Amino acid sequence: MPLVAPTTIQKVSGESQVEVPDLLAVEEPLEIRLGFGPTSNRQQKSVSVTMRTPGNDEELAMGFLFTEGIIHQPADIVSCRHCVQDAQKEGNVLRVELHPDVIVDWSRLERNTFTSSSCGLCGKATIEAVRALTPGPLASEFAVDAAILHSLAERVREAQLAFAYTGGIHAAALFDANGKLVLVREDIGRHNALDKLIGAAFWQNWLPMGQFGVFLSGRIGMELVQKSWMAGVPLLAAVGAPSSLAVQMAQEAQMTLAGFVRNERFNLYSEPARVRLAQMV
Amino acid sequence: MPLVAPTTIQKVSGESQVEVPDLLAVEEPLEIRLGFGPTSNRQQKSVSVTMRTPGNDEELAMGFLFTEGIIHQPADIVSCRHCVQDAQKEGNVLRVELHPDVIVDWSRLERNTFTSSSCGLCGKATIEAVRALTPGPLASEFAVDAAILHSLAERVREAQLAFAYTGGIHAAALFDANGKLVLVREDIGRHNALDKLIGAAFWQNWLPMGQFGVFLSGRIGMELVQKSWMAGVPLLAAVGAPSSLAVQMAQEAQMTLAGFVRNERFNLYSEPARVRLAQMV
Repeated sequence: MPLVAPTTIQKVSGESQVEVPDLLAVEEPLEIRLGFGPTSNRQQKSVSVTMRTPGNDEELAMGFLFTEGIIHQPADIVSCRHCVQDAQKEGNVLRVELHPDVIVDWSRLERNTFTSSSCGLCGKATIEAVRALTPGPLASEFAVDAAILHSLAERVREAQLAFAYTGGIHAAALFDANGKLVLVREDIGRHNALDKLIGAAFWQNWLPMGQFGVFLSGRIGMELVQKSWMAGVPLLAAVGAPSSLAVQMAQEAQMTLAGFVRNERFNLYSEPARVRLAQMV
Repeated sequence: MPLVAPTTIQKVSGESQVEVPDLLAVEEPLEIRLGFGPTSNRQQKSVSVTMRTPGNDEELAMGFLFTEGIIHQPADIVSCRHCVQDAQKEGNVLRVELHPDVIVDWSRLERNTFTSSSCGLCGKATIEAVRALTPGPLASEFAVDAAILHSLAERVREAQLAFAYTGGIHAAALFDANGKLVLVREDIGRHNALDKLIGAAFWQNWLPMGQFGVFLSGRIGMELVQKSWMAGVPLLAAVGAPSSLAVQMAQEAQMTLAGFVRNERFNLYSEPARVRLAQMV
């Protein structure tokens, strides 16, 4: 399926209107199904339906399953393929076969959706739950020059395939200490773009990624910090604002968090020592 | 709980850095619990955990439950109040008591999360599922001048309490045919902001809202069109880009969809006749 879809719009400027062709970022549902259990008693369960931009679905599934704590290494996956039934629905159901030895903790998958927890949940408890899944604070000595962060937004935008056509698709990018863009993934959903990026790195066996930073095109909610922490990323930079809980979690993770990265400016909310300024040398 | 939280940041501009106080948009989890069933056999179930900005939680819950097709009128709700257990967690669990006669269709609540549907789902099937919940295409003769749409972004931003402080919180606004802002709600999540807006209108018994338009500060995914359609809103305008499925659903709903509403321009993706241009009079 394509990343963009053609349409016809009425383009209004001031009080004048003209009909022109345009392109839209494609949004379609993706259902992720797990095949799990011992060979003698194989089971299947649908674990997620998400609205996403088609493409890199296997990476999306792996990134989602890894950052939710369901899988831990590439060997946990036997295969990953789309169900094929009829042409129209083709490509929207992905079946992931887990190794028979993988034990799935279903309670984790339900944390962000249906829950049966006792009365009372809060930001602090949320951070505690995530910390239990991670290897702890990020000790990486990864560092970058401020000039690299200043350059990221424009360079990622140039690397995006679909943004230029639609103006409406998010990006997640992986960069190294020299500022080189190693991977860029796009999706209409911010969380999906990061899942695709982490899933691609997971499959390359690059995790934990102590020698990389992640750049995001949108705002930074708690879940984006959670996913980056799970992947061992020591620096997260984004065009938009972070939430209170995103900052709390980044501080807990000892992750460098940079927001409002645009127009030669940014704000550092935690662990500023990983960003080098020329005048401080 | 407050909408914003104080923090201290390192503000970087070019190669210089200064430590300054700053404010963050608050993000905390909210669990929505339903009390349901006949008086003789009362039950409780947790139906959603969402990361949201505290405030107007009752509206958020009502907007969510209405747009998911669980409740249909204010009389379906007996009460709506926060569980109080300990001070730290206070305010993050909301219990909604449904009238004993309300029958809950649990399968609907699971559509966007865990699903057990047969192999194959797609955009078209998603639209069909939503259409089954709505009264059908929107026949409203509501119309606005283009000048009103041009003015919305700035006026909504001025009306936002928290955006000015944080630069990172979404808004949903209800406006009438004269462009008057009737309601504005804010949240770190776009879907939550719209749920709060629709929940407030629901509680006022304003639904269906054939004489109002909705303005959103972000991009337009399918679910935002779905929620607006459920609420009977004939015009949806947003600062950002719509997705392919958002446009398809708006066309199906006969809803006017305007995207990229900024800088005296916008694009119309469906039902353009509800927007009047001065030169066409």
